[in-house]
Amino acid sequence: MWKQKEIRLKPRRRGFHLITDEILQQFPEIQGCRVGMIWIFIKHTSASLTINEDADPTVRQDFESHFNQMVPENMPYYKHDYEGSDDMPAHLKASILGSTLSIPVTDGRLNMGTWQGIYLCEHRNHAGPRNLVLTLQGD
Amino acid sequence: MWKQKEIRLKPRRRGFHLITDEILQQFPEIQGCRVGMIWIFIKHTSASLTINEDADPTVRQDFESHFNQMVPENMPYYKHDYEGSDDMPAHLKASILGSTLSIPVTDGRLNMGTWQGIYLCEHRNHAGPRNLVLTLQGD
Amino acid sequence: MWKQKEIRLKPRRRGFHLITDEILQQFPEIQGCRVGMIWIFIKHTSASLTINEDADPTVRQDFESHFNQMVPENMPYYKHDYEGSDDMPAHLKASILGSTLSIPVTDGRLNMGTWQGIYLCEHRNHAGPRNLVLTLQGD
Repeated sequence: MWKQKEIRLKPRRRGFHLITDEILQQFPEIQGCRVGMIWIFIKHTSASLTINEDADPTVRQDFESHFNQMVPENMPYYKHDYEGSDDMPAHLKASILGSTLSIPVTDGRLNMGTWQGIYLCEHRNHAGPRNLVLTLQGD
Repeated sequence: MWKQKEIRLKPRRRGFHLITDEILQQFPEIQGCRVGMIWIFIKHTSASLTINEDADPTVRQDFESHFNQMVPENMPYYKHDYEGSDDMPAHLKASILGSTLSIPVTDGRLNMGTWQGIYLCEHRNHAGPRNLVLTLQGD
Repeated sequence: MWKQKEIRLKPRRRGFHLITDEILQQFPEIQGCRVGMIWIFIKHTSASLTINEDADPTVRQDFESHFNQMVPENMPYYKHDYEGSDDMPAHLKASILGSTLSIPVTDGRLNMGTWQGIYLCEHRNHAGPRNLVLTLQGD
């Protein structure tokens, strides 16, 4: 069984955002899968996806702070700067975090840990909507 | 053919640990797969998985040193600090390294390079056991 | 349907290189897949794969500059140094970027965004050819 769907996430401000519920609502086919995998792919080079702690919102704030420190704007060696000072750091952050999540599915549920949630990592100051390709395969 | 199994790794000290043999021992189903993929997913937000050099143990020591330098403890901008100074860096390191490995399987073996091994990356000072979901699919 | 193939990329200089076209040429089986996934795995610990902006070559130059700053050579805490000053940073960069790409396939095409391309990230100064395992599964 293959299920594939493209969904669009509404624009969000720069930062790290929990989107687990939105994924589940837009892809109810997960509930029909006894054993399998889901892949979530983001079709952009200045936003990314990761899995991390979903309970305390300060974790997501600290992600934004630390990634800004680890990948600063306006570094003298950046050549790709004509789309704004947030653009090249956005590309770098996107590759550090990655563009695909691969999550096991068991008995109709994402088989993640108790505290794991799916983050949309928005690295641009003024981004548009973001498109994801969701692919589910299983029995 | 889908095979899925949850395994528990014993607690390990903070650092990077080779777990290739343990994965193979706990999942002998790999030997029956001619062509396919295996996904190894860690159900935690303060430990992660990566693939790297499995021969020289100093590589794993240097991983611990460098990740501590790249993601330091006690940064003034951390707000999520009530679980200890190692906690927020652990979340950040986990997302930088990632929570899933995707490895091709060929003729009953993990089709990795000669020097590649699977690391458990333990980012907490006093962690408990860590749970992995292993999913194999193939012919 | 499973298709798996090992390909060899010619040696490239240290830096970030677009290889999307080479992947497509060496794996025409993608064109026969209506819905599925492709996994691209690199069998090395000092080179890696990522997806990022494929239009402006300065993005790839900035990747090289920034990764050299974020993972410097000759850090006093490196113990694994007998293969040259570029070796331990290469291992670290490889794990930060990752060894597998997972990309959805739709109607015979890689279902990536308009500006997304596949990068080979060569972290060594004098590398040999690099081997990839390409695995496609779908209908």
